[in-house]
Amino acid sequence: MLALNKLYVVGIGPGAADQMTVRAMRALEKCDVIAGYGVYVELVKPLLPDKEYLVTPMHAGVYGMAGLIYELSEGKDVEIEVIPGVTAALSGGAVLGAPLTHDFAVISLSDLLTPWDKIEKRLECAAEADLCMAIYNPASHRRADYLRQACQIVLRHASPETVCGVVRNIGREGESMQVMTLKELADYPADMFTTVFIGNRQTKIIGGRMVTPRGYRDV
Amino acid sequence: MLALNKLYVVGIGPGAADQMTVRAMRALEKCDVIAGYGVYVELVKPLLPDKEYLVTPMHAGVYGMAGLIYELSEGKDVEIEVIPGVTAALSGGAVLGAPLTHDFAVISLSDLLTPWDKIEKRLECAAEADLCMAIYNPASHRRADYLRQACQIVLRHASPETVCGVVRNIGREGESMQVMTLKELADYPADMFTTVFIGNRQTKIIGGRMVTPRGYRDV
Repeated sequence: MLALNKLYVVGIGPGAADQMTVRAMRALEKCDVIAGYGVYVELVKPLLPDKEYLVTPMHAGVYGMAGLIYELSEGKDVEIEVIPGVTAALSGGAVLGAPLTHDFAVISLSDLLTPWDKIEKRLECAAEADLCMAIYNPASHRRADYLRQACQIVLRHASPETVCGVVRNIGREGESMQVMTLKELADYPADMFTTVFIGNRQTKIIGGRMVTPRGYRDV
Repeated sequence: MLALNKLYVVGIGPGAADQMTVRAMRALEKCDVIAGYGVYVELVKPLLPDKEYLVTPMHAGVYGMAGLIYELSEGKDVEIEVIPGVTAALSGGAVLGAPLTHDFAVISLSDLLTPWDKIEKRLECAAEADLCMAIYNPASHRRADYLRQACQIVLRHASPETVCGVVRNIGREGESMQVMTLKELADYPADMFTTVFIGNRQTKIIGGRMVTPRGYRDV
């Protein structure tokens, strides 16, 4: 039996300890029990080996935990503190160059909790608005062709030559990135460790990096 | 004359030293010269008083610096490393509760470098797609009624009762937050230290916090 009176929801960033904020590390140090998705728990354990750990089977990782905690705590006597971290849109973007320096949307392709037609609508509107996009959960075993479907929706409004990029294992061992066109992205074999970036009409390649300018040089 | 061979573009987060990543602090420690917008330079100076500082008159803050640096360095012999930080969408969101736990868009209302009709189009599409929004640069002296205009666009697709929130001085002295309706937001006197959050159709108030659920409890 666990008596909770203070619950921290901690964004740990992409994984490497030095990409966590000082505030996040201090909160983890204060905890008696640390609970999380297996992959994330394994990242934290070496830093704080003496804690009690609970591994949960949650599929969705950080994309949604804070909201869930507020919902579950409704009417309960527990203080909640959300400690933000560097989300994959930002950490992956920094690996690729500077793809999200202007307006952007973050969209998950997981239809586990969202109807696919709502995801399609969001992709369509974001493309129509010429928003850069960070795509989370681009694929899983069960959803092998979702990224292709997403690209086909974006292609209704964007050129096949639109600059895109993928980052795998952000901030972790085996980190890699690749810049490609939207047409090539449709055939890219993404997996659950991939974060995908779709540029807007201004996005270009500079020195091998994916860069979305804001127009400063034209002012 | 400054001879550059390595340039770090560092996201310092909202301001408090403990909201910076360890990696960001280490990069700043390695620098001979630290350049930035006045407000941000003043936040870093007390932490590293012995550095040389350059204050630049850039209006747009972090929203766009990395892209600019890549553009200006094109063809020059300089290594660039972008170090991501906790952007206001995440740090402000954590103060309000959990408004961005699902798909969202980040949109700036500054028309200094973006035509206003493009900003309107993005607001319209994001609202149509039922995306939560983080609004950067909601107002300035010159753009006193932009937030009202933005709310009127969103109101074409969203209920006046949509849950919204504002955070001022995130992570800094005088931090404050307020949860309100979209109708109330249209009249809110935002300033340049305010980050604005507009919920989607699911966003609700739990214990005074702004929370967007992902539907876990219905699974």
